[in-house]
Formats: sequence, C-alpha cells, structure tokens
Amino acid sequence: MSAGLDLAPASQGDAGTDLGRLSLNTATTKSWTLQQAVDGAVAAGLPAVGLWRDRVAEVGLERAAQIVTEAGLRVSSLCRGGFLTASDDAGIAAALQDNRAAIVEAATLGTRELVFVVGGLPSSPTPGAAARSYPAAGDGRPTSADPDRDLVATRQRVADRIADLVPFAAEHDVRIVLEPLHPMFVADRAVVSTLGQALDLAEPFPAETVGVVIDTYHVWWDPDLEQQIARAGAQGRIAGYQVCDWLLPLAADPLLSRGHVGDGYVDFATITRWVTAAGYTGDIEVEIFNQQIWDTPGDQTLATMAARHRTFVLPYLGPPTP
Amino acid sequence: MSAGLDLAPASQGDAGTDLGRLSLNTATTKSWTLQQAVDGAVAAGLPAVGLWRDRVAEVGLERAAQIVTEAGLRVSSLCRGGFLTASDDAGIAAALQDNRAAIVEAATLGTRELVFVVGGLPSSPTPGAAARSYPAAGDGRPTSADPDRDLVATRQRVADRIADLVPFAAEHDVRIVLEPLHPMFVADRAVVSTLGQALDLAEPFPAETVGVVIDTYHVWWDPDLEQQIARAGAQGRIAGYQVCDWLLPLAADPLLSRGHVGDGYVDFATITRWVTAAGYTGDIEVEIFNQQIWDTPGDQTLATMAARHRTFVLPYLGPPTP
Repeated sequence: MSAGLDLAPASQGDAGTDLGRLSLNTATTKSWTLQQAVDGAVAAGLPAVGLWRDRVAEVGLERAAQIVTEAGLRVSSLCRGGFLTASDDAGIAAALQDNRAAIVEAATLGTRELVFVVGGLPSSPTPGAAARSYPAAGDGRPTSADPDRDLVATRQRVADRIADLVPFAAEHDVRIVLEPLHPMFVADRAVVSTLGQALDLAEPFPAETVGVVIDTYHVWWDPDLEQQIARAGAQGRIAGYQVCDWLLPLAADPLLSRGHVGDGYVDFATITRWVTAAGYTGDIEVEIFNQQIWDTPGDQTLATMAARHRTFVLPYLGPPTP
Repeated sequence: MSAGLDLAPASQGDAGTDLGRLSLNTATTKSWTLQQAVDGAVAAGLPAVGLWRDRVAEVGLERAAQIVTEAGLRVSSLCRGGFLTASDDAGIAAALQDNRAAIVEAATLGTRELVFVVGGLPSSPTPGAAARSYPAAGDGRPTSADPDRDLVATRQRVADRIADLVPFAAEHDVRIVLEPLHPMFVADRAVVSTLGQALDLAEPFPAETVGVVIDTYHVWWDPDLEQQIARAGAQGRIAGYQVCDWLLPLAADPLLSRGHVGDGYVDFATITRWVTAAGYTGDIEVEIFNQQIWDTPGDQTLATMAARHRTFVLPYLGPPTP
C-alpha cells in the first residue's frame, strides 16, 4: 500500500465522482460495528454499504436503517438469505421462515437486493463405505441411490424454494439475488456453482424479483463467463457486482482466501468490461473475507479499497452515468 | 476398511469379471515402483494400469513397456502431457517438444490415451497494485491489459498448441486426452475447467485424435455434467473415466484432497450411470493423490479400491461387455 493516497471525500451518492459506485460490504471490516462501518464509508467518500444481517441484528433493524439513512448512504445489498436445500419438512419450513424475515429486513433497510447463498448438500455424508450401501441400479429415477449426495435433487429443491419465496419477495418489492459460489463450495455451502446455472434458476421469474450477483472470486474461472454476463445484462438481472481477488495458496478455510483487488489472479479489466458492456450501472461492492485484512485497521482497508478501485476497476467502467 | 474382502484374482483382461474394468493409476500407490505397481495390480485381479511418465522414466521406456506386457495388463492411459500455456517462443517450443516425446512414449507403451493437463496462467502474477498498472480502456482487444492474468488469451493458446500437436498425435495413433481440472486449479494448473470447454476445444479435430477424460474429483460439481457427458459419448470422445472422491476440509494442497471412492461427497451412482448411458465401456482408473493413502501399504490400498469399486461403481456400469 503506497502512502499519500488522495482520499478526498466524493459527494455522497454522486456516480459522477471516481468512488461514486464503490460500496463497502460490512464483512470486509469485520471488527467494525455497523455505525463504525457507516462512518468509515462516509469518511472515505463512499456512497454505499452492503450489509450483513448479523451487523444489522446487533443494533436492531429499525436502528440500523436509521444509521444508514442518516449517513446518506445507499444500501447496495443485504447478505444474506438462502440455505434452501433442506429435504425434511421442518427444515424447509424453517428456511422459508428465515428467508421471509430476511426479505422484510431488506425492504426495511431500503435495498431491493437480497443476496442468496443457496446452501450445500443436505447433510454431510458419513465417510466410508461401511456406513452405506447402494441398492442395485434400477429404473434410473431418482438419479441417485443416496439422498445425501444427490446433487441433482438438491438443486431441484433450490428451484422449488425460490418458487415458494417469489410471491412474498415481489409483495415486498425485494429481489432474490442468486449468488453462484465457486464450485469448491458445492458440497458444503452452495449448489449453485455458475452464473449460467443461476440464470437458469431465475429464468421462470420476473427480472425484478429474481436476479444474480457477480462475485469475481466465485466466477472468474468460468469459460462461459462473458456470455453469461451478457445474458444476465440482457435480461436485466444483474443485481450486483462484487470484486475481490483470488489468492494462492488457498487459505486453510478457502472462504478466507479472498484478497484485495490486484493482489491475486483475477483479470478485473476484462470482467469489468464485460459487466459494463452488459449495461450494469449499479454499485460495486468490495466483500473480502481474509484474516489478515480483518486484522488491519478499517480505515486502512478502506484506503486500499479506494486505491485499488481507481487502478483496477474504474478505468473499465465506462463513462459515469449522468 | 473391513477385513475379509474377497480378493480372488479375476481373469486378466476379462471385462466379464467384476474387476474387469478397474485400473490402478500408479499415482495412487506412489511409493511403489512400476514393477511393484504392476505386480500389485495383477495380484489384486486388475486388468489394467494407468501410468505416469515419471514411473516410466525410472526404468526406461522400453523396459516399462516390457514389464506391463509381460504381466498381461492393459495400459489404460499415460499421464501426462500438456502445460501448453507459455506465451514466449522458447516456452512454446519446449512444450511442443515435450509433448511430442510424450506421444511417442504413449505409443510405445501401447496406449492410445495420453492425458493432458493444459497448464495455468502463464506466470504467477506479482501481488499488489504497485507492481503494475493498467492502461486506460480502449478498443477492447486484447481483452485484458495484463497478459499474466489474461485467461481468455491463455485459453486461446491452449487451442493453438493442440492444433500444433494433432498431426503428430494422429501419425502415432495416440489421442490427446484433455482433462478438465477443477476450477480451483485454473490459476496455477489448468485453464480447462469444464467438460464442456474441453469438448469445445476438441470439436475441430477427429474424435480418435482429441478426446476427454472424466475425472469425478474435477467435474462432479458441474450443473451441466449430464449433458456434457452425453455429448462426449455421442462424439466418441470419452477416453477415460477416473474415479476418486471429494474430501472436506480441503487438504492444505487441494490436489491431495482426493479420497477413496465412498469417503466423500461425490454421487458415483449418478455419474457412473451417465457415463454408462453415454456408451463408455473402457477402463475405470483410480487416481488418488492423498498423503494418508500414500502412507498406506499398496496392497491394502488396492483392496480398498476393489471393495469400493464393487459397492459404489460396479452396480451402475450396466451389463459387462460381451
């Protein structure tokens, strides 16, 4: 991090300034309270924050909404709904209830974009052959003899739960934003693994009710990415653009292997051009889970975010929206 | 691992026996020499081995071919060619030379199937913004301002190198077998990340000269897997089926996070049915990189392989080929 960065605050909410689309996701400054994150974003000249439900819950929903509104910030998204893969009735009911609560929270906080991490396989399979045996192959349906490992059926349940939630989301003017996660998280976190698959899941529903978020960490590897970003844009489904980099070696917990833009392997020039060409003009959130960054003072993290944004993202965003 | 497994040797090369399609990849029994691996496979009743070039080099090519032939085993594949992503003339020339040598080795060893791991980004990018700066966005070609991170261009170079090698491979009656690697290896090991992408790369060339291998560890997560396996089968491009499981938590080196079939999250029933429905009748290789398995005596590893094959794969293979 070079010193002497120009951190003069931009006019809040003015997309014409160079940080006018940069949003701080509160997960990036994990040690900060909501109030601290909001104050930090304002001080750094950012017009928006992305909120996690835990930070909101700490101060209460109404107070959280008030803190953000008083600071004059936009809420670029709320993280997160999802975890829709349960196969038992109680698990399904609990998931629907929690997601309805999240939809209400998003509406109260003034964001339309509720990010969904859909969940992994229904339960951790028991390792080893002794614990289970497959029946002989038969009629071919269901595709798997093992419900705990049945990815096809698990993905179908995600589709079913989205259909369950769409009317409630529409009623509250909130969008279910599907987040494809990197395929290395398919077992334990999200069975939606590509942008194309997320768009297939969204397809039956209106674009204002089911969208997608493009998180570079999760999708940068995808040979089909340019085409799927264009498809998402053409359908009006791009609900967010989250930037962070892919670091190697992977952290012991690969979730924490996300780095500042520019510190890893992601080609932000190319992906940002694709997102811009697809017509996206919304906020660009920095959401980084990384122990070293969490151990760094928040204002320093924000300064790095701003500097990297100017170098690696801003030149490829096209002209500011008028 | 339960005791008392029936390990009576099958007639070698007889696909009608229950282990008649099971192949030991020599990487699975890493501490064994080629001779030991061949002897172990014979003792366990396996009809085939998959060879790595390092094991072959240890005894010399001609002697390796003799060891396998004398044992009456098939060579299901040779690992590996590839690493085609260099962008400089010397790197390109070296890659072509090494792959021509590998093609000759495959032919000498009596296998048509030479597995290609295509390589990652051309060099490890230097972390940090200070080390580089992007020029302003311009005409959009090349897509990236940063050659070290230009995944699109890197993938194009893979296509170009395959085209360079196809005539030599055809001349030696050897197939270039593209292996899609899990997307978590895209930066440092293989920019071919999905079966569909591998088939797109193969498309311009005859099926007998460019094929694909389906390794469950790398592709099990893919929402498009059933369709792409069917496509590969319809084109006659399935050159191999490699089975091993996905373990969590990921090993510090994710390459070593492969486990015995049945110890992880992969749905072998479903994927094996898809491979069978696609018309594949060839060998099924067990290729596991895992320190714990490498520390296990090889004959015990083979016994586990055989038991897991009978439980998790064999019932879904369909009737033996006559």
